Amino acid sequence: MTYQPINLGNKFSKFSEHWAPRVIAEMNDYQFKLVKVQGEFVWHDHADTDEVFIVLEGSLDIEFRDGAVTLAAGEMFVVPRGVEHRPVASEECKVMLVEPRGVVNTGDADSALTADNDVWV
Amino acid sequence: MTYQPINLGNKFSKFSEHWAPRVIAEMNDYQFKLVKVQGEFVWHDHADTDEVFIVLEGSLDIEFRDGAVTLAAGEMFVVPRGVEHRPVASEECKVMLVEPRGVVNTGDADSALTADNDVWV
Repeated sequence: MTYQPINLGNKFSKFSEHWAPRVIAEMNDYQFKLVKVQGEFVWHDHADTDEVFIVLEGSLDIEFRDGAVTLAAGEMFVVPRGVEHRPVASEECKVMLVEPRGVVNTGDADSALTADNDVWV
Repeated sequence: MTYQPINLGNKFSKFSEHWAPRVIAEMNDYQFKLVKVQGEFVWHDHADTDEVFIVLEGSLDIEFRDGAVTLAAGEMFVVPRGVEHRPVASEECKVMLVEPRGVVNTGDADSALTADNDVWV
């Protein structure tokens, strides 16, 4: 049988929109998503789940109500469930997200940035 | 409050053993682990869970009973639950694993390569 690797660079080359996560793999009931981000996202939280950010290219700030963390390429962070956060990137940044299937990018927030969910690339 | 990124290169610098995964983060009941591999691992499967391999440096072959996949840096693969597999790397390769807390590296196999579980770095 032929098995194919999932190439992250190849997947990133297939879309250009910002703040619109694309699913590239599933593990049990979790999804691995790629997203290109630039600018300021909306404040939101995910009441029922932690959320993993892994920066693959560029630099990402994740702001919290009481601080912030800056992630360079090769760095990751786990945003705990229920914690309000706002991703911000001054230049385009490529990120892998890991979270349960069904998580909406803007969480509890009503926003124009709410993306379609479960879009594969 | 001060938030710290998890730097993958820094974590890799803290251990040298092969086939001994180190936990670097938890998301809900899942763990992110780093492992350095070289040589042939043991055939095994994980009956209850899929397992994600993300190659960060080097090249990794994952052999199956009916084929194989080769992962370069920047490539990933999801080994489905219950599927026998054997990771092989001719030279040292750095890998991130994602799987539920409690998964043993050799799965169902009785092996000298069975590593202590839930070791953080």
